[in-house]
Amino acid sequence: MKTRTETDSIGSLHVPAGAYYGVQSLRARSNFHITGRRMDADFIVSLAQIKKAAAITNRNAGDLKASVANAVIAACDEIISGRLHSQFIVDPIQGGAGTSANMNANEVIANRAIELLGGEKGDYSIVHPNDHVNMSQSTNDVFPTAGKLTMLKLIPEAVHQLERLAAALEKKAGEFDDVIKMGRTQLQDAVPIRLGQEFGAWAAAARRDIVRLQRVQDEMRVVNMGATAIGTSVNAVPAYLYNITANLQKICGCKLVQAEDLIDGTQNLDGFVAVSGAMKTCAVNLSKMANDFRLLSSGPRTGIMEIALPAKQNGSSIMPGKVNPVIPEVVSQVAFQIIGNDCTATLAAEAGQLELNAFEPVLFYNLIESARGLTGAVRTLVDNCVTGITANREVCRRHLEESVGIITALCPYIGYAKSAELAKESLKTGVPILELVESRKVLSGDRLKAIFDPAAMTGNAHMRNVGRISV
Amino acid sequence: MKTRTETDSIGSLHVPAGAYYGVQSLRARSNFHITGRRMDADFIVSLAQIKKAAAITNRNAGDLKASVANAVIAACDEIISGRLHSQFIVDPIQGGAGTSANMNANEVIANRAIELLGGEKGDYSIVHPNDHVNMSQSTNDVFPTAGKLTMLKLIPEAVHQLERLAAALEKKAGEFDDVIKMGRTQLQDAVPIRLGQEFGAWAAAARRDIVRLQRVQDEMRVVNMGATAIGTSVNAVPAYLYNITANLQKICGCKLVQAEDLIDGTQNLDGFVAVSGAMKTCAVNLSKMANDFRLLSSGPRTGIMEIALPAKQNGSSIMPGKVNPVIPEVVSQVAFQIIGNDCTATLAAEAGQLELNAFEPVLFYNLIESARGLTGAVRTLVDNCVTGITANREVCRRHLEESVGIITALCPYIGYAKSAELAKESLKTGVPILELVESRKVLSGDRLKAIFDPAAMTGNAHMRNVGRISV
Amino acid sequence: MKTRTETDSIGSLHVPAGAYYGVQSLRARSNFHITGRRMDADFIVSLAQIKKAAAITNRNAGDLKASVANAVIAACDEIISGRLHSQFIVDPIQGGAGTSANMNANEVIANRAIELLGGEKGDYSIVHPNDHVNMSQSTNDVFPTAGKLTMLKLIPEAVHQLERLAAALEKKAGEFDDVIKMGRTQLQDAVPIRLGQEFGAWAAAARRDIVRLQRVQDEMRVVNMGATAIGTSVNAVPAYLYNITANLQKICGCKLVQAEDLIDGTQNLDGFVAVSGAMKTCAVNLSKMANDFRLLSSGPRTGIMEIALPAKQNGSSIMPGKVNPVIPEVVSQVAFQIIGNDCTATLAAEAGQLELNAFEPVLFYNLIESARGLTGAVRTLVDNCVTGITANREVCRRHLEESVGIITALCPYIGYAKSAELAKESLKTGVPILELVESRKVLSGDRLKAIFDPAAMTGNAHMRNVGRISV
Amino acid sequence: MKTRTETDSIGSLHVPAGAYYGVQSLRARSNFHITGRRMDADFIVSLAQIKKAAAITNRNAGDLKASVANAVIAACDEIISGRLHSQFIVDPIQGGAGTSANMNANEVIANRAIELLGGEKGDYSIVHPNDHVNMSQSTNDVFPTAGKLTMLKLIPEAVHQLERLAAALEKKAGEFDDVIKMGRTQLQDAVPIRLGQEFGAWAAAARRDIVRLQRVQDEMRVVNMGATAIGTSVNAVPAYLYNITANLQKICGCKLVQAEDLIDGTQNLDGFVAVSGAMKTCAVNLSKMANDFRLLSSGPRTGIMEIALPAKQNGSSIMPGKVNPVIPEVVSQVAFQIIGNDCTATLAAEAGQLELNAFEPVLFYNLIESARGLTGAVRTLVDNCVTGITANREVCRRHLEESVGIITALCPYIGYAKSAELAKESLKTGVPILELVESRKVLSGDRLKAIFDPAAMTGNAHMRNVGRISV
Repeated sequence: MKTRTETDSIGSLHVPAGAYYGVQSLRARSNFHITGRRMDADFIVSLAQIKKAAAITNRNAGDLKASVANAVIAACDEIISGRLHSQFIVDPIQGGAGTSANMNANEVIANRAIELLGGEKGDYSIVHPNDHVNMSQSTNDVFPTAGKLTMLKLIPEAVHQLERLAAALEKKAGEFDDVIKMGRTQLQDAVPIRLGQEFGAWAAAARRDIVRLQRVQDEMRVVNMGATAIGTSVNAVPAYLYNITANLQKICGCKLVQAEDLIDGTQNLDGFVAVSGAMKTCAVNLSKMANDFRLLSSGPRTGIMEIALPAKQNGSSIMPGKVNPVIPEVVSQVAFQIIGNDCTATLAAEAGQLELNAFEPVLFYNLIESARGLTGAVRTLVDNCVTGITANREVCRRHLEESVGIITALCPYIGYAKSAELAKESLKTGVPILELVESRKVLSGDRLKAIFDPAAMTGNAHMRNVGRISV
Repeated sequence: MKTRTETDSIGSLHVPAGAYYGVQSLRARSNFHITGRRMDADFIVSLAQIKKAAAITNRNAGDLKASVANAVIAACDEIISGRLHSQFIVDPIQGGAGTSANMNANEVIANRAIELLGGEKGDYSIVHPNDHVNMSQSTNDVFPTAGKLTMLKLIPEAVHQLERLAAALEKKAGEFDDVIKMGRTQLQDAVPIRLGQEFGAWAAAARRDIVRLQRVQDEMRVVNMGATAIGTSVNAVPAYLYNITANLQKICGCKLVQAEDLIDGTQNLDGFVAVSGAMKTCAVNLSKMANDFRLLSSGPRTGIMEIALPAKQNGSSIMPGKVNPVIPEVVSQVAFQIIGNDCTATLAAEAGQLELNAFEPVLFYNLIESARGLTGAVRTLVDNCVTGITANREVCRRHLEESVGIITALCPYIGYAKSAELAKESLKTGVPILELVESRKVLSGDRLKAIFDPAAMTGNAHMRNVGRISV
Repeated sequence: MKTRTETDSIGSLHVPAGAYYGVQSLRARSNFHITGRRMDADFIVSLAQIKKAAAITNRNAGDLKASVANAVIAACDEIISGRLHSQFIVDPIQGGAGTSANMNANEVIANRAIELLGGEKGDYSIVHPNDHVNMSQSTNDVFPTAGKLTMLKLIPEAVHQLERLAAALEKKAGEFDDVIKMGRTQLQDAVPIRLGQEFGAWAAAARRDIVRLQRVQDEMRVVNMGATAIGTSVNAVPAYLYNITANLQKICGCKLVQAEDLIDGTQNLDGFVAVSGAMKTCAVNLSKMANDFRLLSSGPRTGIMEIALPAKQNGSSIMPGKVNPVIPEVVSQVAFQIIGNDCTATLAAEAGQLELNAFEPVLFYNLIESARGLTGAVRTLVDNCVTGITANREVCRRHLEESVGIITALCPYIGYAKSAELAKESLKTGVPILELVESRKVLSGDRLKAIFDPAAMTGNAHMRNVGRISV
Repeated sequence: MKTRTETDSIGSLHVPAGAYYGVQSLRARSNFHITGRRMDADFIVSLAQIKKAAAITNRNAGDLKASVANAVIAACDEIISGRLHSQFIVDPIQGGAGTSANMNANEVIANRAIELLGGEKGDYSIVHPNDHVNMSQSTNDVFPTAGKLTMLKLIPEAVHQLERLAAALEKKAGEFDDVIKMGRTQLQDAVPIRLGQEFGAWAAAARRDIVRLQRVQDEMRVVNMGATAIGTSVNAVPAYLYNITANLQKICGCKLVQAEDLIDGTQNLDGFVAVSGAMKTCAVNLSKMANDFRLLSSGPRTGIMEIALPAKQNGSSIMPGKVNPVIPEVVSQVAFQIIGNDCTATLAAEAGQLELNAFEPVLFYNLIESARGLTGAVRTLVDNCVTGITANREVCRRHLEESVGIITALCPYIGYAKSAELAKESLKTGVPILELVESRKVLSGDRLKAIFDPAAMTGNAHMRNVGRISV
């Protein structure tokens, strides 16, 4: 392989002649064989967007020659459009607070810019990774800002899917509004509920998650560009410091603000923990919902089977005809992943020391995985599960009739103790509860019918219109 | 021991004659020997406040005789004022979604009301735990509402301490604004910073936590009173359903709203997960800050020792004269506890099934412990640590002078590579960086002095007033 | 209140005249208001056992006057027998690596010894907390050793309950060996299984947990007594260093060994993490089992209801006759607690720095809570649930007959694809699978009967005896 | 694109004509877009090893035609040797307990076998994915067994690196045995220690982790091949059931045993939790060690700087000459990842229901990531950090001389209170402690010298040889 020789403070290395990355990327790759994976594509784009914004700002500030700046900008645009990603060779989990990722970007951009200016790769006298591409910057403002930009791309995608989910659930809530069935608490028969109400409740939870994610997203808008090394803005001139955020915002197309306290903005990662926490809260709701889907569709013969999930693939390699709730299962797994990732993110954020948190790489790696997993899980939940759910009306009706839970409605009339006695007897003898109550003549038949009307017992959702049975 | 006999659906038990609790509390105590602890006092008060609000609402609705209602209210008031708490005998971690805790309250209140009405404890024909005290209610609305009321008491206490902390840190930020020292990234010498800026950054983080906690607190205001068993409001008449929240709000003195979707409000605990997550985020910041305190005060002879923490107790049972950072240490421990509790709370919330989450008891137990721990840890951090911190100005000055990190400021003039060379040489030879640079005559002496002015290098916090050195 | 004045390096404080604790305990109590709870009783006993062993060893080494030593020993014996525990006033979560707890013990023991020797409390010239009670010791060997001794008491209690659980499950496995039912994977009907096999599987898991806990217990036997401050044994004479472990072992009655590397033994807490991990693994099995109990007993009319759990208390405050799976529910909650506590313990262990881990207090607090919770949860699971479980044989039989899962057995004869077709048709038409297969004459009736024999289909447990149907 | 049409129970799909995977893999890929990653290469090999063992066993049992079996075996061998991995297209996180992964393997192997037999891909009449490749198997025994085989490959790799680490640390322990320095507890100066003792302690911890991992590895040897769907061995003939494990063992080259209780072996994943827990415990030790490295090498001018880590890359993109502890930093990050992954693994294992745990995919995904990360992190820690660590002897000596901690050694002679007073005075006045003590003439000069001999104060490691100074 043809190589060129590059030198840094540590010494010299042979770099493949065709490589856009340089000596520092190469060292980092050899230092960190951890995940065996590459950095996230959106994260790479975020780095390029930042480098572009910096080049523009430095050029406008008069600190960076226009020719160099423009070559840097052109190189960034290529990366933004998806090219050169293969040149990002450092492991996403890396020591050094992201210096390796930042230098990988600096080197790739520098070499591409050199090329665009007619130079030879590695001739950093034309465009220098540190002095030009990284001008007025530090890993310590570039890297966390790239993390935030990436989340500002990924959260809206997750929110979009959650909105589709909420809408799909609400549609089902309407469709199933007339399906009265037994509710269950602690997996034991409780009192009647409409199937539509259950879907409405899941939708309501999803709607809260949307609000939480949208709100927490604002924490990502506060970036520390201009902080440079530790937040004191060393090596950043005012013309850069005051304009970099606005320029970056234009490139990214999402609202950004510069941290009021750049020292704080450089060392504290609590905003990321908040984002992770919101995703975790969402994961809790999703997994609970997914578990409910599995419970309600359990069967087909020996379970609850009040709803049927669409069959999406053979359920078993050995049991023919088996259809399993694979979509809810993957949703729960993603939820578990997000919860575990939140643990890692929390640990990483807690471990920050003084002017910097060196553990950003693992934190971002986990947040990106969580956000992508969330989007993917919710998308398949909507498309391959919720929209195709059907109600087993017959089963719901039978469950309602067979259960003794409606005795609850009698408490206000005959008291808890007497009601409990009747319930016990019905369960023991198998005599339906209504029949039993009638035979005891505790109340007149008409009165009983009104009290035991299952539709009325599920009435509060319609309260404002139909009122409650008068007693 | 004198006893009375009480009976429920399971059978009969001997209850101590003097006990206000009854058969169901007794069964629960025997079923659940878990923590060996009692329910939280504020939680007990919350239960009593709910029972009082329900009695008022039921009386006004005409469903509960005024004499009975008033006795119930009087009994509740006693509990609210701190009496009868010893009668709450069930373990805070209990099966049954809190039924045991709710019944413990119902029984204690019923028996005390019976007594107030001149009856004998256990004569539930006078006041019945279920039919009267629990009227229009279910554990499934009472218990989660009690959890929320409790958090609405505890979060403001934590916020109050955090406000004291932020203020104390800001005061120190002012006091130490003129102490210039070396900043550190990855525990390696970086560039100059003011000690005051470090305190300002911690304060800024605390301020964000305050905002987060205040915001998330609103999630606790949405209560599901009136939902009864599963959110369908079975057994709750409209006059109760529409008024219970307002009456409860009056008693508690904190803003409450009734959940729009009572089904959702009964089964989903994501609001608690959000609260736990906000406490966890705060814990991360606190532990990071506590760790920074320990680092900066390390020594006294072989560490960093840029600040001194007030001595609060002998540091060692064996090493005389040792003073340890015990307050930051307990803060980190509480942070670890809160992070672990968040894990438990997340698991509990995720495990909900269909119309109810049966795992509320362990969730509330953890949230209460976290909130109390947070308050206690921050209080001692303010009172026994932050307010007494002093700066070791001499050490800070020496660190600044000895370090080579100021070379960073030279990069814009001589480039990164040349600067790195000088830094390496200074470290190797021990020749101070300024001297070395001067000897090389890379820039004029005056220019160098301006560039290397440490105060200027820490300038951005004062940017708007004093601008940045022009170069 | 009458007081005496005590002085330490920080200054003087008024101590209640009757108190056995002294100035350092008092300072610690005021520094740490965290949990509002007291140290665990077994932990206090462990501290006293260590102090007794040290006094004996120091006396034998000729370093501690016999009269003083004997008074100290007598004081320790009182604490070991349960007295004076109210004098342990420091919060279990405390800064300082346990110095406060150790000094609390030192002070209580010193003052009680002084009293026994006829002196006045506070006259430390007679018996000094540091010089006599703490002789040859440091918090840094006493405190972690106390943590280990405590776990050596608590783990066997948990193991005992797990053994009772395994035995109870195995008894049920025998009792239900002839109950054939449908097995379920992913909550969907699978192939037949015996109810006894399900109980056997839970028992097998419990048996593994017993082995794990017994093994990991050995990690607690390695104590660092003699290490003193950091493991270099400073201030411990050889006669002490070589005998303290043996003396402690005699007092505790459990096998102990001195750490080979006392430096390591003082700073690394991985042994505790291993113990916590084993409890967590056990918690996973318990919660899975508890969840299975809830699933299989769901109903009584709209669930699976293949088994019935004993009714232990009224299930609901509003729904009469409801009996809930409260015992499995509390088991899962304890499991969640243990999992969260493991997170805290992990964080605490990870945070150790150099020669010591200052975060032992919160670690021990969590491990003790986990162990006690585990014991309590398993005890109630055995006594109030497993032993009373009954099989609903009729339901199991019906589920077996109605299901189509037995088609699986036909695959080796007619292939997966054809079998899947038949399964689909049976589910769609409601024609029982056996009938359908017979009508298609795919195999002779006798052959079919042999293949579909449910008992044979559950045969592997009896493999060695009855073999498998020959085909 | 040329395609072929394949059909399953759900319907028909166009499969690329050249693809070895089939309709079920395709469905799964479309159902699960989660990580965007492929299954682990070792996991794919494990699947192929199982399929090969099954084909051999079925052939020997006379159930699978030799020609078909041999083609299947040949196809498996290709996969084992690294070919065809690109045909494994399903996401590692997937619903369905691994059915998709198993079917992906079945389809790829079937199609390759068909090809080898001269047929056309997709002509499953020649070799059928279910009937032939999956014969006598179920996802529910294949998939967990593949998880175990994979861990049996990955754990030894991690152990190997840990052994290298322990050896490297022990070498340094010897090299630095004569470097006496101050020990630190709670980051405060304590008493003297040898630098070699610190390395010895880290090595001791690593050695324990090796033992734990080797022990826990045995949990992975217990496989449930032969269990088929739920552990009842339905569709597995005795000749298969009794031989499959031995045949698999021969292929894998690692010791395996068949689970005694196959029902238990199919549904409970606690063995994986135990493995994850052992890796987590190791992570705790590694991160503590890494943190210690960062602390001891902090500086170069304003930190502790008792050791120097080898410079492995430029430390900063903005600060020239900065060398950061990047290797310890990546080690801590991997530790955080492993701890978070343990959380996910725990959740997944806990969520199992009845006869199966559907959440194995996410569990295995996390365990594999943890094991690979552990290996990679420890490897770079050894090669790029530990072996190159040097001691700053001069700094260590100075720290020792300047500190007052040696006063501790005086306690046995003058008592704790008096010693504390001297320490306080030395710290306040700056008069070295030895000088101060001498000036007070508390003990004779020779006596003092013997007591304060730092080498003696670090003596216990050499105890058995040199004894302790006699006093």
